[in-house]
Formats: sequence, structure tokens, C-alpha cells
Amino acid sequence: MATDIASRELATPVDVTEYLFKRLHQLGIRSVHGIPGDYNLTALDYLHKCGLNWVGNCNELNAGYAADGYARVNGIAALITTFGVGELSALNAIAGAYSEFVPIVHIVGQPSTVSQRDGMLLHHTLGNGDFNVFSNMSADISCDVAKLNKPHEAATYIDSALRECWIRSRPVYITLPTDMVGKKVDGERLKTPIDLTFPPNEEEKEEYVVDVVLRYLKAAKNPVILVDACAIRHRVLAEVHDLVSKSGLPSFVAPMGKGAIDETLPNYGGVYAGDGSNKGVKDRVEKSDLILSIGAIKSDFNTTGFTYRIGRMNSIDFHSNYMAVRYSEYPGVGMKGVLRKVIDRMGKLHVSPGPTVSNQPPMDRRTSTDPTVTHAWLWPTVGRWLRENDIVITETGTANFGIWETGFPKGVIAVSQVLWGSIGYSLGACQGAALAAKEGEKARRTILFIGDGSFQLTVQELSTMIRNGLTPIIVVICNEGYTIERYIHGWNEKYNDIQPWKHTDLVPAFGAEAKSYGTHQIRTKEELLELFNDEDFSSAERLQLVELHMPKEDAPHTLKITAEASAKRNKEI
Amino acid sequence: MATDIASRELATPVDVTEYLFKRLHQLGIRSVHGIPGDYNLTALDYLHKCGLNWVGNCNELNAGYAADGYARVNGIAALITTFGVGELSALNAIAGAYSEFVPIVHIVGQPSTVSQRDGMLLHHTLGNGDFNVFSNMSADISCDVAKLNKPHEAATYIDSALRECWIRSRPVYITLPTDMVGKKVDGERLKTPIDLTFPPNEEEKEEYVVDVVLRYLKAAKNPVILVDACAIRHRVLAEVHDLVSKSGLPSFVAPMGKGAIDETLPNYGGVYAGDGSNKGVKDRVEKSDLILSIGAIKSDFNTTGFTYRIGRMNSIDFHSNYMAVRYSEYPGVGMKGVLRKVIDRMGKLHVSPGPTVSNQPPMDRRTSTDPTVTHAWLWPTVGRWLRENDIVITETGTANFGIWETGFPKGVIAVSQVLWGSIGYSLGACQGAALAAKEGEKARRTILFIGDGSFQLTVQELSTMIRNGLTPIIVVICNEGYTIERYIHGWNEKYNDIQPWKHTDLVPAFGAEAKSYGTHQIRTKEELLELFNDEDFSSAERLQLVELHMPKEDAPHTLKITAEASAKRNKEI
Repeated sequence: MATDIASRELATPVDVTEYLFKRLHQLGIRSVHGIPGDYNLTALDYLHKCGLNWVGNCNELNAGYAADGYARVNGIAALITTFGVGELSALNAIAGAYSEFVPIVHIVGQPSTVSQRDGMLLHHTLGNGDFNVFSNMSADISCDVAKLNKPHEAATYIDSALRECWIRSRPVYITLPTDMVGKKVDGERLKTPIDLTFPPNEEEKEEYVVDVVLRYLKAAKNPVILVDACAIRHRVLAEVHDLVSKSGLPSFVAPMGKGAIDETLPNYGGVYAGDGSNKGVKDRVEKSDLILSIGAIKSDFNTTGFTYRIGRMNSIDFHSNYMAVRYSEYPGVGMKGVLRKVIDRMGKLHVSPGPTVSNQPPMDRRTSTDPTVTHAWLWPTVGRWLRENDIVITETGTANFGIWETGFPKGVIAVSQVLWGSIGYSLGACQGAALAAKEGEKARRTILFIGDGSFQLTVQELSTMIRNGLTPIIVVICNEGYTIERYIHGWNEKYNDIQPWKHTDLVPAFGAEAKSYGTHQIRTKEELLELFNDEDFSSAERLQLVELHMPKEDAPHTLKITAEASAKRNKEI
Repeated sequence: MATDIASRELATPVDVTEYLFKRLHQLGIRSVHGIPGDYNLTALDYLHKCGLNWVGNCNELNAGYAADGYARVNGIAALITTFGVGELSALNAIAGAYSEFVPIVHIVGQPSTVSQRDGMLLHHTLGNGDFNVFSNMSADISCDVAKLNKPHEAATYIDSALRECWIRSRPVYITLPTDMVGKKVDGERLKTPIDLTFPPNEEEKEEYVVDVVLRYLKAAKNPVILVDACAIRHRVLAEVHDLVSKSGLPSFVAPMGKGAIDETLPNYGGVYAGDGSNKGVKDRVEKSDLILSIGAIKSDFNTTGFTYRIGRMNSIDFHSNYMAVRYSEYPGVGMKGVLRKVIDRMGKLHVSPGPTVSNQPPMDRRTSTDPTVTHAWLWPTVGRWLRENDIVITETGTANFGIWETGFPKGVIAVSQVLWGSIGYSLGACQGAALAAKEGEKARRTILFIGDGSFQLTVQELSTMIRNGLTPIIVVICNEGYTIERYIHGWNEKYNDIQPWKHTDLVPAFGAEAKSYGTHQIRTKEELLELFNDEDFSSAERLQLVELHMPKEDAPHTLKITAEASAKRNKEI
């Protein structure tokens, strides 16, 4: 009764779901991923009138991956699943987004608060009357949990969760019980957008840190810049661009930071990853007397098996919520404000040039008459075919190591999951990225490189792409199974083999109409070059699937080193 | 060092993994489901020498579903995944097994205990050094968690977890860090099989309960027997069979108990599910003065939306860990011992006959000249085609409601997920069930009925079936989307539509060779009867996929009633 009185008193009452969806729209979300389930159906009815498109994925894990890919291109994404069965299927994708700082709003349709209160023995429950088990499972992989159980707190909870999602760039979990879907909240609030600005640093503290940074920076003889994933995920790419271009310092990316720097800048020097660095980069970085390290995530696969050789005495670390200069730490000082001031005040620095990047394969590969497509040849060659603003997605395996050797044109967005490394991720992410590209203002191609093993985990997202009229170019590297695993352990073991598929037949089987797709089978360098030169293929105006046959035993050398380190660590006693 | 000394002292040292796998073999497991990942690869090397076959699924969720199906036919199953990415993908399947009392041994390959202790920033982690997040997520959906971190406790932990898994008929979670794989444990223990007998009831208490039960049973004028899921899952089918056949009482099953009673017995009367009961059953059960209810799970979908009308004053409830006679409860008294004594001592009872089952469609459907395949016609007709010992799997949706109308030959095993109800489950379960059937002693066909919507979630398990040479008959009910959802909400909404697939083309695309499969497209009753009469089809000696086209708006009437109740509950304020 109290609720009803409250709703009559609202000046502009709107339904909870409408409020939530309009907020999503205000954040720039245009499509929502997910799967219908009876506990979310009535909520889905609100999508259309809030300007949101429903993707309709084939399963929840794939939908979660797709939301991740969408968020990486669009800035944020939303996913709707149903209680229990739906949300649990998506957990791996949500954990990946948590791990890699990708903001996904995960909305879970729940049984009514009445059924929950009464502990009803409903389908999609554990049969024990406990309706909190699943939200507890999501709590450790979400930066906020908002349970919309009461109308009077719903709008506040929603706004707070969405702000956290954006600012902390991690998933949030929002429950929407069926009886809350149409409850009324204050629509007036919608006139004020959610504040998405980063909380500013404390002025005096920031000034202090800036001074320290500038002192070391100006004194350094041969400083360099090293940019990693959190620069992208915590939204300081504009600052990074200004720092790199204005300073002229040799600038590098870690594998997870690929795409964070405009690679056409003359001072861009390639990928630093310890022993797996691009040619000349390891020496240049490790001999530098000051490394401005921005947004680092020093995970095993991002450092070629922990082979960084950078001392803290030579480092300044920029992070979203703290700074570190040598051994001095400054908790609570975010990099965004510091970077801007450093850029504005740094003046002219000592610039001692570094290596430069070329998309030429190693000389022996260039002159080789062997027609076999190898990784050493492939990845630089791909760089020559890429175009400005392409989205390049690489699956965990040979592809996300190979891409270290690919120089990007301007504006390229790289998507991969180097830390979380869930195989199959990239096909789902490709769907989400291609959709975000389609909705975005810039013309962007979406290009995926995925191995035949990983492809099997999430294959049905091809169908979702077809259904949504998306036109990615999907290159399936056919090398007969889990090559990355072979390099770690079990070279000839059956468990690293896969069932051979006819990949190109899958596209029409999933319902693509004859004119809406193309398929190709490539076995030689010449065939691939011809394909790349074919404008009809390269313009990406329809979905295309390329079977690219490569030797089972070939891999980028960086993968080999990293796998060896992993195998060794797995055996340590 | 202590460990090394200990291992030298063992009379018959065996590796932890060998110990674990040999225990699995002793429990009757012959195939292990799962996906390779670098944290489990070295463990997989032990499978072959322990007599275990590796299935090699396409993804972990499907592998979990398959393990569930395998366990329902074989008695218990094992699943191996890798840390984080792998295990989380399987959670929905594990939660389903927990909910529905299916014993699955979930073994998770983990980073080495050294890496965990040091909080290394490894791939497949959240990047925060917390290696317990994922095991915590599994804890609430496992009846035991065994972390094999120390050699001296590993064998005890393994034996205890496996016993719990069997006795409580629920999943257990076992971690296997990479450095524990080859650690030594006492192999002598393997000579003594794990004790899998149910703990006996306290003698005096059991006698007391048996007396009470017998007193009411002998006094009852028209008692009936009602058997549900837990009779199957808690392994009292022999007792149920003796009770039903020796007493001659009218006997019924709940939907989740389908298959628990030999339906060729003259006193088998069909499915009781409140308002959705088979013809004549509702009246007979609800007018009985004593219902022996064995292993009930009174969930919404198992009771046609809570429409049971059985009073506690007329009920005796048999459960695995308690009994209830009217309002008197007897915690800790398991049904197994009680049932055996009741059977032995019940003598001659008042038998007042009940309805009987026929596999004839309703008269109007039999005489109709409309060629369209409808649910009312289909399910009894299927009953006439089934053979002894068939395994019949029905997906959540039209199929698992339709099967209520199918009378079974002797020995048929029914597999469905009425409580958990995760769509897509049944295709994975079909793979596991078909494999268990192939390994088992009895000749069994495996037959799946799945809707075209659900089929999309887990389609790649077709590939696993092909790879493992399995020969199920898969009937895809093509009705253009999520019909069960339409009945709940959103009749014409786009979110209940799906991308149209060419199902029959998928089988060769997944690599099936020409002679190893058959596909069929059925649009009329006559075509279906012809197919059923074709021995080449019905003998199930190769994988077969049937596209069975049915009207989008048709559904079993029991689904319609249940969906209506769900929709109503979802809206309750």
C-alpha cells in the first residue's frame, strides 16, 4: 500500500524497466544482448520503446562474449539473461569482463519478490528455496550488485550501478524481479544524465605527484612510453595520444595495449613484451632510464611468461586509482588528471630515438618460394591489408600472439582476451564488435582471426551475425586443433585434436542466403594475397568466412616462448 | 621435503591423478567428458592407462550437460575442466545436476599450488591474485569440495568426495593443481573399493516408522503409489518395482518420475501432475485415502503449476533422508530401508483399481484427416514406436510436457530437466546418454526430442556425437522458436523468434561422413509413421536427424496450463 501511495505522488512516474532501459540508451547503448527466458520476457517488451534493439543470441555465454566485444567498441554494453540457468551460463564471459576491465550491465530477470519471499519451488531454482545463491556467485565478478526489490530505491540503485560500471569499467549485476518490471519510479530523474566523470584527484596531492613525475621526466636521458590495457579500458586514450605525439618519445605498447597508440606516428616503436618483443624493442625499453608505464597489466601472456626486465627505479606507473614513481606510491591518485598536467607542463624532453615498425615479414620469409602460409609471414602481411579504423579481433591462441607482429593503420581497434584467455570468446566478441561498428558513426570493418579449435566452442554466433545482418570477415585458421595447448603439453595427444568441420558449409546451414555471404578456402600465400587484393572481398559488405589452412606445427615465436614458460611453471614443485 | 620422505615410505606409491582416475573407473565410469586446457593437460595423460576414454566435447557447458546425461544412464559421471574459464562455463550444468540430484565428479585443473601461494598474475585469473573465487562459486552447487593441495590428504579427500557424490547423488568439486598431478599417494588403498552403501537407518527408529506406515497402509481403503524423481536419483528403483508389482496398488508417476515404474505392469496408471494429469488419474489419486509418495519434488513444472490437490492427512512421504506420515516427521530415516521392510511385511492390501494407460491419441485426433503432426497425436504415437530399454530424452519445452502422454515399454529410461529447465541441456545430455548406452551391457537406442530454439544453444554437440561414433535419433521439432516462452508471454514478439537453420545440412558440415548418418524432413503424420516403420531408421545404427515440422502455435495442453500459471505468478504484485 505504501508503494502505491508513493507511486501516485510521483510527478512523472515511469516503470522501473523503462527507467533502466532509458538510462542504458543515455549511456550510448543501442543494442542489448541476451536470450529470452520466462523471468525476463515482460521486461523485453520495453526495449523497443526505449530505442533499444534486441540481438537475440543463441546462448548466454556467447551473448556475454558479444556484450564484451560490443563494450570494447561502443564503450559499454548490456546483457539480459534469466534467473539461474541463463545467468550462470554467462558467468565465464562476465568473469572475463571483470578480469579485463570491460563494462557490461548484466540484467537478470528474476522470479517475483513474492515467490522469492515464499521460497517457492520454481523451475530454474536449486529446489532449496534459496534465491540468493546465483547473485552471490556473481558478486565477486561484479563491481556492483543492485537488487531491485523495492520501487523507492530502484532508481537510485540503477544510477549508482551504471555509474560504477562506467567509472570502474567492470561488470555490474542488476536483478529485475518480474513484479518489479512495471513498478513506478520518478521519471524526472531521467532529465539529468548520470554523472560519468571520473572523480578528480585531490588537488594538492595531484600537484605533488605531477611535480615528482616532471622532475624525473625532465632529468631522464632516454625516456620511453609504454602503454597497456588499462589505458584503453580506463579511457585515457586522448591523454595517451597527446603525450605520445607531443613528447615525441619512443612509444611502445604491451600486447594488451595494442591499438592504444596511433601506430602511424613516427615515434611508435612496436610491441614490448619482454623476450617476445618486436625486433629492437626489448633493448630500447630495458635500457631506458625512465619508462612511463601507463595502465600496465603484467600478466604471464602479456609479458611472454614474466620476462619483463624493467626495474622500479626506472619506472613511473600510471593507473586508474594510483600512481607509483620508483618505490613511492600514491594511492587514490588517478592517472587521468596527472597525465593531462604532465602533457601541459612537460616542455621539451630528451628524445633518443627507438626502433620503428614495418609490415614486412622477416627477410627469409619474404624471399622464400615455399607457398605455405606461416605465422611469420602472415601477421606483417595482414598489417598491409588492414585499413584505417578496422576492428581486429584475435582469439587466444596463435592469433593473439601473431598480432604482435602486425603494424596497424590509424584508428584500428584491437580486441582480444590476453589475461582471461577463454577460448571461443572471439567469435562472440566479433558479433558484438561488428554490431557496435554498424551502429557507430565511423565506417569500420570487423575482422576476426580465430583457430579451428576455438571456433567450435561458440560456432552458433555465426547465426546471430547472419540474423542481424552483420558483415564481419572471419578468418578461421585451420591447423587441426588446439595448437597453443600442443606447445604447452601433449604435442600428439588425441585430446588436442578436434573433429574436422566443413567450416564454409556452416554459413548457409545457419540460414545465410546465397547473396548475403561469401566463403573462401586458402592454402597458399598467393591465394591469400589475391583475396586481400580483391575489393569485393576486402570491402566487407557481406559476411565472409575464410578457411585459412596453416601447418599444425607452426606458431608465432612469441607463443612458443610463452607456452614453454607456462609448461615449466605448471611443473614446478 | 616432508612430502618426499612420505612418498618414499609408501609401499605402493601411485600418482594422485592415477589414484583419482582408478577410483572413477571402480565407480563404473568409462568415459570422461570435458575440454583440454593448459592447467589440466598433464592430468589427461593418465586417462588411457586408467581405462578411461576422453570424450573431447566442443565446450564446457555442453560437456557438463553430457556428463549429466551420462550419469543418468550410467549411475555417475566425471567432467574435467580447466581453472576459471573452463569451470565457469560448466556452472549452469553443474547447478542443474545439483538441483536434480545427478552425481557428477567435476575435476578442475588448477595452476600449481606454488603459483597460487604466490598470487601470480596468470592467465585465466581475475588478475587480483585470488585463486579461491571460482571454487567458492562452485561450493553452493556441490555437495562436497575437495582441494587436493597436499599429497598426504589427497587420497582421503578423493575417497570421501566420491562417496558423497554417489550417496547424495549430487555434484562434487575436486581441484587438481598442476604440481599435484604426479605427487604420490598410497596405492594400497585402491584394493578396497569405496563404500557406496547407504548409511543404514537407526534400527529402532526405522522399525517404529515401518510400523506406522504399515498401520496406515493396511487400514487404507483405496491407497495408491506415486513415484517421483528422487526415487530414481536416490537409487530405490528395485524397491519401487517390488512395491508396485507385489502390492498391485494403482501406481502413478510424477513427470520427473517418468520411467521409474515399469509401465507394462497392469496396475500402472499414468502420470499424476495435478491439473495436467493423464486422463482419469487426477480423480483417482486425489480421491485416494492414502498416497504413498516416493521421492517427490513438487516443483511448478512437475505439478502443472502447483495444482496438486493432495492433503498431508492422506500422504506418506518417502525421501532419501527423512520420512513423513501425515504430519509426523522422521528426520534421518531414509526411504530405502523402510521401503524394503514395508514390502516384506505389507501382506495383502485393499486394491481398488485405477485408470490404465494406452498409446492411442485422443479419438478426435485418431480419426482426423488433417495431415498436420500435432502434439496431441504425436506423443502417444511415439509410445507405440518405442522399444524396450530405449533412452528417451526430452528438452524443456513442448517435448518434456508432451512425453507425459507417452506410454513406455519396459526398461525405458526418461531423461529431462523438469526442475532446472535449462534450454539446450538435452542435446548435450543426449551425447552423454548415447555414450553410456554404447558402453553399457543392454542394447539401448537413444532418442532425443528437442525444439528448434533449444537446439541452437548447444548445436555443436552433434559434432561430439559424430566424433565418438554415437548413433542417437535426434528429432528436432521445428516450430519457429521458443514456443514455451510464447505461451508464457510475447506470442508474436521478435524475441521469441529464432534464425531459421537448415538442420539437416549441419550434420555433414560438422564432419559426418556420408554413410555414417541419415537426415529426414517430416511434415505429415503419414511421413512420420512411414519413418517409424522403416527398420533402417528405427534400428538406430547410425546418427539420424529428423526435422519434424509442427505448427508454431501448437503445444501439449499440459504446457499450456503450466505456462498460464507461470505467467500469472510472474505478474503477481
